[in-house]
Amino acid sequence: MPLIKTYCKSKHYIAFVKVDFNRSIHALISSNLSYFCSVFEHFNDIDSPTKLKQLKTSELKAYSDWLRQFLIGKISETGGHFAANLGVIELSVALHYVFNTPEDIVIWDVGHQAYAHKILTERKNNFDTLRQKNGISGFPKMEESAFDAFGTAHSSTSISAALGYAQAARLQNIARHHIAVIGDGAMSAGQAFEALNNAGVSNTNITILINDNHIGIDPSQGALGEYLERLENRKDNLFTDFGFQYFGPIDGHDLDQLLPLLESIKSIDTPKIVHIRTVKGKGYAPAEAEQTKWHSTSRFDKLSGKNTVESDSFVKYQDIFGKTLLEIAENNTKVVAVTPAMISGSSLHFMQEKFPERVFDVGIAEQHALTFSAGLAASGLIPVCCIYSTFLQRGYDQLIHDVALQNLPVIFAVDRAGLVGEDGPTHHGVFDIAFLQTIPNITILSPANQQDLRNALYTAVSEPKGPIVIRYPRGKAKEEFKATKLTNIPLNKGKMVSDNGHKIALVSVGTMQEECLSAIQGTEVSLFDGFCIKPIDRTMFEAIFSQYSAVIIVEEGQIIGGFGSSVLQLANELNYKGIVRTLGIPDVFVGHASISEQRHSAGIDASTIRQTIEDILLTIN
Amino acid sequence: MPLIKTYCKSKHYIAFVKVDFNRSIHALISSNLSYFCSVFEHFNDIDSPTKLKQLKTSELKAYSDWLRQFLIGKISETGGHFAANLGVIELSVALHYVFNTPEDIVIWDVGHQAYAHKILTERKNNFDTLRQKNGISGFPKMEESAFDAFGTAHSSTSISAALGYAQAARLQNIARHHIAVIGDGAMSAGQAFEALNNAGVSNTNITILINDNHIGIDPSQGALGEYLERLENRKDNLFTDFGFQYFGPIDGHDLDQLLPLLESIKSIDTPKIVHIRTVKGKGYAPAEAEQTKWHSTSRFDKLSGKNTVESDSFVKYQDIFGKTLLEIAENNTKVVAVTPAMISGSSLHFMQEKFPERVFDVGIAEQHALTFSAGLAASGLIPVCCIYSTFLQRGYDQLIHDVALQNLPVIFAVDRAGLVGEDGPTHHGVFDIAFLQTIPNITILSPANQQDLRNALYTAVSEPKGPIVIRYPRGKAKEEFKATKLTNIPLNKGKMVSDNGHKIALVSVGTMQEECLSAIQGTEVSLFDGFCIKPIDRTMFEAIFSQYSAVIIVEEGQIIGGFGSSVLQLANELNYKGIVRTLGIPDVFVGHASISEQRHSAGIDASTIRQTIEDILLTIN
Repeated sequence: MPLIKTYCKSKHYIAFVKVDFNRSIHALISSNLSYFCSVFEHFNDIDSPTKLKQLKTSELKAYSDWLRQFLIGKISETGGHFAANLGVIELSVALHYVFNTPEDIVIWDVGHQAYAHKILTERKNNFDTLRQKNGISGFPKMEESAFDAFGTAHSSTSISAALGYAQAARLQNIARHHIAVIGDGAMSAGQAFEALNNAGVSNTNITILINDNHIGIDPSQGALGEYLERLENRKDNLFTDFGFQYFGPIDGHDLDQLLPLLESIKSIDTPKIVHIRTVKGKGYAPAEAEQTKWHSTSRFDKLSGKNTVESDSFVKYQDIFGKTLLEIAENNTKVVAVTPAMISGSSLHFMQEKFPERVFDVGIAEQHALTFSAGLAASGLIPVCCIYSTFLQRGYDQLIHDVALQNLPVIFAVDRAGLVGEDGPTHHGVFDIAFLQTIPNITILSPANQQDLRNALYTAVSEPKGPIVIRYPRGKAKEEFKATKLTNIPLNKGKMVSDNGHKIALVSVGTMQEECLSAIQGTEVSLFDGFCIKPIDRTMFEAIFSQYSAVIIVEEGQIIGGFGSSVLQLANELNYKGIVRTLGIPDVFVGHASISEQRHSAGIDASTIRQTIEDILLTIN
Repeated sequence: MPLIKTYCKSKHYIAFVKVDFNRSIHALISSNLSYFCSVFEHFNDIDSPTKLKQLKTSELKAYSDWLRQFLIGKISETGGHFAANLGVIELSVALHYVFNTPEDIVIWDVGHQAYAHKILTERKNNFDTLRQKNGISGFPKMEESAFDAFGTAHSSTSISAALGYAQAARLQNIARHHIAVIGDGAMSAGQAFEALNNAGVSNTNITILINDNHIGIDPSQGALGEYLERLENRKDNLFTDFGFQYFGPIDGHDLDQLLPLLESIKSIDTPKIVHIRTVKGKGYAPAEAEQTKWHSTSRFDKLSGKNTVESDSFVKYQDIFGKTLLEIAENNTKVVAVTPAMISGSSLHFMQEKFPERVFDVGIAEQHALTFSAGLAASGLIPVCCIYSTFLQRGYDQLIHDVALQNLPVIFAVDRAGLVGEDGPTHHGVFDIAFLQTIPNITILSPANQQDLRNALYTAVSEPKGPIVIRYPRGKAKEEFKATKLTNIPLNKGKMVSDNGHKIALVSVGTMQEECLSAIQGTEVSLFDGFCIKPIDRTMFEAIFSQYSAVIIVEEGQIIGGFGSSVLQLANELNYKGIVRTLGIPDVFVGHASISEQRHSAGIDASTIRQTIEDILLTIN
């Protein structure tokens, strides 16, 4: 620790320098935090690149350590993306120290690695508001800061965006640097390759900084990751073949390597790759040891690494899916699973542990995941393609062209359907009903609870006649996991949930049933389960239209093109003359906040549904 | 021509062998076709791999030449994709000769190169029906033939699909070969890379046969194409790095190289690349000379190469766009254009010729095209991203995440919106209204004619405040190009086109106005132009709902989630009690046929619209 030694002269400090900052500082900090902070007190004032640049180069290591501890402290209190951010502390410091941001353009791929960047760019003082309503976003966001050159959250967009900036600079004769920081996991996505293919021959001042840590959320998949491991001492490689100058690999935590390298490339105004190696979770031992678990975290105790959020024994929807899929796979050898880099997020580890050969993690590669699933189905297997609603957007063409048009029996387990809370607008699953139901041949199911999700999956896999989408939300069912007997259920039927007279029929989609059950307490409103979004259950709606004076549809998705729009089309066709109200997400992007805050702002929480009911009752009484 | 010599003994044949089959046979054929055919009469009986395999290896060159002439003759009579098919004659013959199709799986990427394959697989006798209603498809189609292992039409899906088959074979212990035939142009798309990244480490019997001809529709773009050119004598390369054995490059027209190589790889049951070089348009001199022009053709005279379809002087919508964009670009240096490999199809050559630096052909790379455009916009330029409706599906996530959420001023020129005719269901632009209008921040315009397209583009580019989509169809306006003065028009207004009383308001979307004008002849129906799909023109519809007894919406897109569904939502909100009919594409994929046949089957041609009008008039009178 020579640099820290030169910086700190006090005798108390001697105790510190014997400690391996990178491995066990979290234990040290808990006992000596106040003292540690006082020694480095002036680091606490650094909240902009201008102030950062007032440090001597020799002070940056100590500052990086301080910043890492600051971040660990903050995230332990707020929760958020964690391990990836610890891996880029030195990189964030080095980039803002060497380059002239925000004039120089730095784009952080996937965006959940940008916390240190945010702290360094004028958002340190409100970092406590991270991911909270009206607080700072968990991702780079153009409208939040001039330092956030481009909003990111879905992976593998950074090179494309940086190349857009770089070509614009070339055309407009603007001298500036353009740096896309991208992980090896994100490099597996086709878009990154498309951008590489263009950037390499672009004659622009673009730098692609590959942050190679062998992991996305789960370990990286595919040939490219293995290739990156072999790049040591090989100066002719894929990247040079594509027209880039290549620098690396270097240790991305070693500022003595990082700073001179970044400094040296400033004189090169053509395409270049900087390949650094880092450790996800660096400097916090529990996160280094369990990188997937610590990708994102709730509040935790720094010393023990234990979650401090009170938990319950309710089961996550993703676990209902994952455990049920395993049960099904045990009894049907034709069932296989496909995921684009979401083994843990989709709870596919249950099946993977028992049937590793039948679970395909294709890396971040949604387009391939869809067509690959179609190929598996064409060959007679029953693929369950597990994909978050927001990432299904990446495979939309393949869904239409390769699956639906050919009417292939691919089952889609579409997780995170609906509002997702703190991750905000980049991660909501609020468009899928609209973009899916316009496609012929697809069955779309939205189970309202654990039992229906289990049986829907079981039935879909039992008799696959074409593509079937089963959508379910982030979060938990209000009960423990129950390994109930799996039974076949009709996949084209809604059902009555609660019969309270014939004034108003409230039809809820999926788990919005919970809000609706709460909303109808003590009212003369009957509740129906709009389980089958497509094909729409004509029989149920014919009965509703013939009996009820008013119909309210509640869905956690965009109103335009949503399930409500299909119900209106049917109501129009059947010449229904009663009142129809369609509640859902209005025509805006819903900002980050808690899910309950988001539902309230969209007008689909229990209280707003109740208000709509009362307004209609006044009209029809 | 030694092989042909051994095969043909007649003295008449001597005249033939002096001719260079590959260069100028088309001239020869026209004068000697009947004789040529009689010499090779028994080739005419070959319509299956079984019959093909009855030929000696030494006969395959002559057969390939015969097949090429057969295909030239057929396409000259029917029109269709042309140059790419001539480039894979020998390959098609070799694959079906060496492998055991359909048990062995051959998947033809993009699919428009599969004509020889179709002729060789039981569709020779109805090849005259190519691309016609109820005839054979212009693309591989699973329901058409067991030899079409996977439907293809959009590029770069073949490796993913083949890998699906290959993994299924591995799990099910099926011994068979899996071959994806993919062009170098299609290799630039991210999905191909995603699939390579998985296939290389898959331990399956998959063969990726790269058909390298330096061109897609327009010349290939990017670093990969240049890389493929340098692969001669280099046995360690990108593909071996990714885990494949690599064979090639060889001349893909030389059966003496092709047959032994394909035969030799049959013993290798791990991932491998076969790299062949071919000439697009091979064997038909006009097509070799102008490969882009001859990518797809109408009927033509074989001798002269001249189009035999009677033409008119009406202007294509794509040319209205391309010429107008050039006019705008001449006066606004901030305007740039982006296309994913569709310079000619989008008529961007007008602008490219004058401003090559401001037109970016990114190759087949829709995801990158969208985010790259967003980057250009973020840097202050005004990008016009030119993309067919059906290919915009490939960039859907990027449209939501990178453009709309950030409200960046990217102008989308969405060509081929609506039904496209003979290319069929893979190419229709019938989903875009539904999948676009559910996204916040996007303006969607559907001009009805040349003048409105020109002014819409001009206005959109003049004051870009956020993403604007301008959608226009395949085909022609019913007039010549007119370089009218460009003027600003309101982008949020529909308008009345024809005032014929207050019984029925017919609202047409885009160029469906033509069908509607025809349908209302002599009726008491007023016609409105639903120019602005989003934001919906509330003022116009409030006026319509307050004055008319019935409203009919006509759009050339899916009914579910379409413009009609938005009008119904507004009608419901405004408590309209009149009749509403929404005409559009029902919930099916519309098969290949002429556009007029397709419109009729969908019920949106003039006669069906007229019928709807008359039915309603009976009701309200």
